[in-house]
Amino acid sequence: MEQELDKLVGIQIQLLRLSKGWSQEYLAEKSSLHRTYISQLERGLKSPSIRVLFQITSALEVPASTLIKMVEDSLNADERGTN
Amino acid sequence: MEQELDKLVGIQIQLLRLSKGWSQEYLAEKSSLHRTYISQLERGLKSPSIRVLFQITSALEVPASTLIKMVEDSLNADERGTN
Repeated sequence: MEQELDKLVGIQIQLLRLSKGWSQEYLAEKSSLHRTYISQLERGLKSPSIRVLFQITSALEVPASTLIKMVEDSLNADERGTN
Repeated sequence: MEQELDKLVGIQIQLLRLSKGWSQEYLAEKSSLHRTYISQLERGLKSPSIRVLFQITSALEVPASTLIKMVEDSLNADERGTN
């Protein structure tokens, strides 16, 4: 469940980035983070701090709570799917 | 703004814990975290990972997105206050 959570967070960050047509490089620049870190986040290899979450969602111009809500909805969908 | 964010997260965790009448020890036990870590979080001395956020909000029986939304509302209120 914990790796699952990081993966879902990564997927949502990637979806929001792609919906803007941005490269990882551009998101990295906008959020003052390294491109390799963005890449690791998107693959669920890192669990971002809330502080980093706010840096990224601010760059993506969505509220952090919206991204978290999308992750919760995915988690719930997964749980229903496997029951 | 970054320390501010960690402080607001800590305050919201503390408010939710106190609204349940729980000690830091009890929240620590419920969330499988150390009491000293809960204490540091509540004082804004640590920025929790999203994974830890979900552990705590699951223990507190509120969605993580609700806590983040409360933090965003506090941040916005602060910004309005200082403009």
